Amino acid sequence: MKFRSILAASAVIVATGFGTATIAQDLPMPVQARQGQFKMMGLNIGVLVAMARGEADYDADRAQAAADNLVTLSSIDQSFHWPEGSDNMTLVGTRALPEIWDNLPDVLDKWGAFGAAADGLAATAGEGLDPMRAALGPVGNSCSACHDDYRASD
Amino acid sequence: MKFRSILAASAVIVATGFGTATIAQDLPMPVQARQGQFKMMGLNIGVLVAMARGEADYDADRAQAAADNLVTLSSIDQSFHWPEGSDNMTLVGTRALPEIWDNLPDVLDKWGAFGAAADGLAATAGEGLDPMRAALGPVGNSCSACHDDYRASD
Repeated sequence: MKFRSILAASAVIVATGFGTATIAQDLPMPVQARQGQFKMMGLNIGVLVAMARGEADYDADRAQAAADNLVTLSSIDQSFHWPEGSDNMTLVGTRALPEIWDNLPDVLDKWGAFGAAADGLAATAGEGLDPMRAALGPVGNSCSACHDDYRASD
Repeated sequence: MKFRSILAASAVIVATGFGTATIAQDLPMPVQARQGQFKMMGLNIGVLVAMARGEADYDADRAQAAADNLVTLSSIDQSFHWPEGSDNMTLVGTRALPEIWDNLPDVLDKWGAFGAAADGLAATAGEGLDPMRAALGPVGNSCSACHDDYRASD
């Protein structure tokens, strides 16, 4: 209980002039790190989505680098990122549902599915816009599969 | 200038009851992603430092996993993380000095030195506390080498 209280006390919600926002401050390092991991994934996926949508010119080198980064990230050992007591019922500033910890094998399966999709993307990302676009869909689906079950909607 | 203004307007400083803190809100995705990268590095280094200091029991599997994660992170392509105009003179919420962009080859050399140190750490991290501790020093030094030149002190 003490751990839980400390975690709860170390997170704050701040409303700013830029709209109401939940700001994760002093979250436990594992939570900051896993959120950072998703930011990194988002950055690289964003590079590819922009090309897929025609918002950025297709660039084979950039596409390959982004896909390779996703493969690299998929090989990060997740065991340090998800300590017990770091769900959104315990902490302000995370959207991680408690169901994660009731279903860790399934969560890791879904993480593995992301890795497989990233591998597929990296195999084609540098070979043209259409192949990259086709291989990007499964990556997005792998993200959604986990978010649908294990991430709060807000 | 418009880009600069938008970036400046999208970052805020908030002082809270938990002490005055700079909170990076709505920072550009590359900045959020690179900060996330350093959080991930910090998490894994922290696992090892705790063992090295005797604050946590040495665990060969955990030590190896953390070291391997550092190697993995060192192979992330940095080109998306450091867009022009994302220094601490332009944005609130980053400590990245403008000198980074004047010395990109040196910055990348230092990133490479981190990778080499991480490789050395991964080669011994699972083989005992003393070998892990010995190989951890060069990793810390590689961090400091970059921070000394390219990160603001606060």
